[in-house]
Amino acid sequence: MNISILGSYTTQFGELWDQSLSDLCHEAVDGVLSDARIEAKQVEAVFVANKAAGNFENQHHLNALVSQFFSHFPPSMRIEGACASGALALLAAEYALLAGQYETVMVIGVEKMTDATSEETTHILSGAANNQNEWGSTFPALYGLVTQLHMKQFGTTRSQLSSVAVKNHHHALNNPKAQFHKEFTVEQISNSQLVADPLRILDCSPISDGAAAVILTTRAMTKKPCILGFGHGQDSLDLAHREVITTFAATQKAASQALEKAKVAIKQIQVAEVHDCFTIAEIMAIEDLGFFPKGSGGHATETGKTTIGGKVVINPSGGLKACGHPVGATGVKQLAYLSKTIENGEYSLGLTHNVGGSGATSVVHILGNKKL
Amino acid sequence: MNISILGSYTTQFGELWDQSLSDLCHEAVDGVLSDARIEAKQVEAVFVANKAAGNFENQHHLNALVSQFFSHFPPSMRIEGACASGALALLAAEYALLAGQYETVMVIGVEKMTDATSEETTHILSGAANNQNEWGSTFPALYGLVTQLHMKQFGTTRSQLSSVAVKNHHHALNNPKAQFHKEFTVEQISNSQLVADPLRILDCSPISDGAAAVILTTRAMTKKPCILGFGHGQDSLDLAHREVITTFAATQKAASQALEKAKVAIKQIQVAEVHDCFTIAEIMAIEDLGFFPKGSGGHATETGKTTIGGKVVINPSGGLKACGHPVGATGVKQLAYLSKTIENGEYSLGLTHNVGGSGATSVVHILGNKKL
Repeated sequence: MNISILGSYTTQFGELWDQSLSDLCHEAVDGVLSDARIEAKQVEAVFVANKAAGNFENQHHLNALVSQFFSHFPPSMRIEGACASGALALLAAEYALLAGQYETVMVIGVEKMTDATSEETTHILSGAANNQNEWGSTFPALYGLVTQLHMKQFGTTRSQLSSVAVKNHHHALNNPKAQFHKEFTVEQISNSQLVADPLRILDCSPISDGAAAVILTTRAMTKKPCILGFGHGQDSLDLAHREVITTFAATQKAASQALEKAKVAIKQIQVAEVHDCFTIAEIMAIEDLGFFPKGSGGHATETGKTTIGGKVVINPSGGLKACGHPVGATGVKQLAYLSKTIENGEYSLGLTHNVGGSGATSVVHILGNKKL
Repeated sequence: MNISILGSYTTQFGELWDQSLSDLCHEAVDGVLSDARIEAKQVEAVFVANKAAGNFENQHHLNALVSQFFSHFPPSMRIEGACASGALALLAAEYALLAGQYETVMVIGVEKMTDATSEETTHILSGAANNQNEWGSTFPALYGLVTQLHMKQFGTTRSQLSSVAVKNHHHALNNPKAQFHKEFTVEQISNSQLVADPLRILDCSPISDGAAAVILTTRAMTKKPCILGFGHGQDSLDLAHREVITTFAATQKAASQALEKAKVAIKQIQVAEVHDCFTIAEIMAIEDLGFFPKGSGGHATETGKTTIGGKVVINPSGGLKACGHPVGATGVKQLAYLSKTIENGEYSLGLTHNVGGSGATSVVHILGNKKL
């Protein structure tokens, strides 16, 4: 594996009513080119991650829209896998690079969600569940079920759930691109409006607009962070087909593949951006990735082990919870954010974890400041 | 390049009101496994091509839906690029194979379109144009403009346009999976209902349901057709940004890349499945691919040079026009159909050509019965 992250860029995440889907793409393309200090024509291909521009914006040929920001129209394709679209687009780009098809490519993730009404957005997002088996169930409802069982099986508490949100909102204070810059107490999270018992509104990641981009290259780059490994796990689309729902097997598979490829142990990882679409999702992620034993993720969070300065820093960007979750952008933003912290010397070995649906698709990347 | 087409399968194309999106996927998965004579567990990954299941069927995690038909849940991703989604998914799969990530993968293309009303479908399909620059223009309207200019510049005639449809409906008689099994005369095509001057209803490919799948492998296979080359060209999303609209530069680029990779000349190609979303599109395709000089595609078709038995057989399946155009399935079906004709000994060297939008994305594959 010899892929370097030559540049990265993230737009502001938030309710960006003055920026169109196209504006967000354009800003991310210009931003990442500037960060990588390369000419646009050096980008040989573009991989675009997006979940539902066809629904949100009736834009059904987004790859071509992005290629149009280059005078040489690099070949492009869009990759989608619900909320894991970003990391799947990274994988497709990595395959093309490792195949020798291209030397330098751009991956851009984008979602423009806030032009739709809440009803429309709920309908669109629920489409990432299996509408044959779980008709009518929204994502908060599915994760609510998972949360109830996790609490029953492992004694995870309401205040442990809240501690995830408290931490991520605290971390987001350091990230100027984050959607929210507001601290909350455990009590505020625990007493916020109920959405799907026991999940409350402040357990949920927000609806967001935003884009993120990275430029990946197989050219020899000694001072840039590298992709050290990746893994891709899959599970049944719907929870109903699984024997266990408090562990996401897809994440376990993706993590073990990525760690094996990178030849590192999970305990060596210093920092991770994980898929905290709900507070319970972060607790499960840090367990399923292997950072903490099963059932102890809530306790680890509550006791500060995942806060900046702790044993392993989880979601320094603020995560989906506080940085925001423009769906197609999220997986790319995770890599963009961590690669900068590694380039800046804050960390030397990190992990990203991007999930689609209620654990059906899971992708893990490991990145570091040198080839190990 | 060492990729063999181990198996292929196409469902019936048509208005399949008794088959759901999921049913179509399931049939294609079972069909291609049976054709390839391998166990399901040998499929290491799945690449799913689909344009708009999120709009047509509110299914937003289609890759996970397809993985669910396997007990081992192979890792999967969805690839999209408007009507070129099928061929782009083939490319993504080929990159993964050539990178050594997998040895045997499935590519499945699917679209379930006929549950929507005509108004909904028109709205969804028009989203593949650039809604910022061409708001309100449908695909027939854009191709109508292209047709008018092609007729003016090159003297292409109304009856030459019709001869494309006559030929493809004739060819489809031999393809049991085709949506239409009905012959037409030039007069019937030319006098059918006007859609977007000069394009008439029988110049247009239909709205279709259907799925197609292939299994690709890098395992040594001496008796299976091989992928000999591929190319991927891109152009501006909207016609308004182009100096020339009667030639699709993206197709020229894709063809020259594919031919160079395969180390074959266009005149060696015996058969091609090209993207005839409208009759004019086939005329332009056989010119832009290099089968005939610019401006002579209409004449070549009218004089039988592209009919079975002619100089180069174009669209033996019936093409999009008569076989049908379930958008995400089309690019996969082209390869599935041709690979069978090569496996059966009818031809030894073929080409597929899949276009997204009005010439913005173009992908060409070259396949043959042995490594050249």
